[in-house]
Amino acid sequence: MQTHSILAVGSLAFDTIETPAGRAEGVLGGSVNYFSIAASFYAPIQVVGVVGEDFPRNHLDWLSKRRIDVSGVKVASGKTFHWVGAYDTNLNEAKTLSTALNVFEHFDPRLSSAQCDARYVFLANIDPILQQSVLDQIKSPNLIACDSMNFWITGKPEELRKTLKRVDVLSVNEGEAYLLSGTRNIIRAASIIREMGPSVVIIKRGEYGAMLFTASGMFIAPAYPTSTVKDPTGAGDSFAGAFMGFLAEAGASRDMAKSAPDKWDALLRRAVLAGCVMASFTVEDFSIRRLMGLENAELVDRQHQLMKMITI
Amino acid sequence: MQTHSILAVGSLAFDTIETPAGRAEGVLGGSVNYFSIAASFYAPIQVVGVVGEDFPRNHLDWLSKRRIDVSGVKVASGKTFHWVGAYDTNLNEAKTLSTALNVFEHFDPRLSSAQCDARYVFLANIDPILQQSVLDQIKSPNLIACDSMNFWITGKPEELRKTLKRVDVLSVNEGEAYLLSGTRNIIRAASIIREMGPSVVIIKRGEYGAMLFTASGMFIAPAYPTSTVKDPTGAGDSFAGAFMGFLAEAGASRDMAKSAPDKWDALLRRAVLAGCVMASFTVEDFSIRRLMGLENAELVDRQHQLMKMITI
Repeated sequence: MQTHSILAVGSLAFDTIETPAGRAEGVLGGSVNYFSIAASFYAPIQVVGVVGEDFPRNHLDWLSKRRIDVSGVKVASGKTFHWVGAYDTNLNEAKTLSTALNVFEHFDPRLSSAQCDARYVFLANIDPILQQSVLDQIKSPNLIACDSMNFWITGKPEELRKTLKRVDVLSVNEGEAYLLSGTRNIIRAASIIREMGPSVVIIKRGEYGAMLFTASGMFIAPAYPTSTVKDPTGAGDSFAGAFMGFLAEAGASRDMAKSAPDKWDALLRRAVLAGCVMASFTVEDFSIRRLMGLENAELVDRQHQLMKMITI
Repeated sequence: MQTHSILAVGSLAFDTIETPAGRAEGVLGGSVNYFSIAASFYAPIQVVGVVGEDFPRNHLDWLSKRRIDVSGVKVASGKTFHWVGAYDTNLNEAKTLSTALNVFEHFDPRLSSAQCDARYVFLANIDPILQQSVLDQIKSPNLIACDSMNFWITGKPEELRKTLKRVDVLSVNEGEAYLLSGTRNIIRAASIIREMGPSVVIIKRGEYGAMLFTASGMFIAPAYPTSTVKDPTGAGDSFAGAFMGFLAEAGASRDMAKSAPDKWDALLRRAVLAGCVMASFTVEDFSIRRLMGLENAELVDRQHQLMKMITI
């Protein structure tokens, strides 16, 4: 058991996606799929999820070859979760056309003892009741991050509030932040959400990057402006993967907010930039294709480039 | 005649504006009005424009009290240019409801000999034929910047191309950049526009800030996230005012692109941030109200704050 290991709980899925750049039918997707590939550039991952018998075994094998432990991915009898979505020219927002939960409908994350020891926890966009069930099982985490979406903000607001009280980091997009906070002002929105629990709030702004809100203020990171944008699916999850991976690799912990606030803030800022860079690769092709072919040297090069674009 | 003086040619106007925050009827506006107030925090300005007999003399007096030379503002018989516009919840784009050019219809900028000596020239959003006529009169400028809009990009593309061949800096918003370049990819758009003439291209992105494109690469500046946004009118012109003012104060010149490229790039980046900060004040109230009440200490404070928000 490595102390820097990240536990990621969420979906592995098939996606059918239509964007102005084309269409991809029944391709590999799912929040922890994107998350874990992105995070694996920085730290080892343990994935907890469920797939159907139709999910390709060779993809799980591929994941396990790059410090992603897939022993927590249950293969249940039935079909894999299938999401059908579309984007118009405003690539910042997906329109869900249909969702077939399939085996994911009865997803009930039970952690092994190694998983309960995880220091870094990422709760992808799942039912907040399941998010809490995971937190009940975790022993002594350094850092807990979670994601959510309109569906839960509107559908299970009380349960989501309970989750938020127990997490350190929440990442949401602008629309979700407005919905969750009840204000359309981004600064007030972040402040209201921080009062709900997470001391670190990340508001993702698609092609405009992300904003980080902490006790010591705010950091505004631009997206890396890639010239090829084919499919925004998974941008947020791969952002979160690089963000958590970066913090896990650095051994960051929520305690640093008090014991070493400057270092904590600097790490969070760099983690956000790592997230922006990773997301910029994700969108360059459909599904997880670009991430699967991504070389570490490309990642490092683009990080340098983004730094140059924001340096005064 | 001060060597750092900026010549600004464009409109002084009445605006009637409707935004989600309210309505303002027949208030002071116009591109060089916003521009010159913003620029005057940094450098002396000479304004060239035309107003009708209904334009308040005491406003011209107010301008002239803060190193803005209004002797080039002609008072013509007739009414002042009046723009009526509205914004919906997407505050990044104005919808023009009506335009009464009035005395502005026969605007023909004739420069005095002191004006011809100006080192810094800002051609606000006017007919590109007039923009060229101004350039024909200027003797030896350090730097020429211009603005334009959809109306001229579509209506007088050939004339606009001629202007672009003769300017150093073009500032446009995202939609205008897409229209002018024929591509919706922001990086390719900037590259295409740079090939049309301006070695420096600024793409304004409203609440998301601005991007700077030069020979040495790109700089991405966020907007200062103010919590009060009442009226975006004039944000672009006051951005340009602070940008040019900053460069004039620093004695910047187009020659530096070759003789001192690093210094040139650093000055341009700081000038863009100055522009972002100024624009963030402009939008906090209707018309030029916030700019007229702006204290230098507030400006400096917000500049420090914005620096902190982008520092890694």
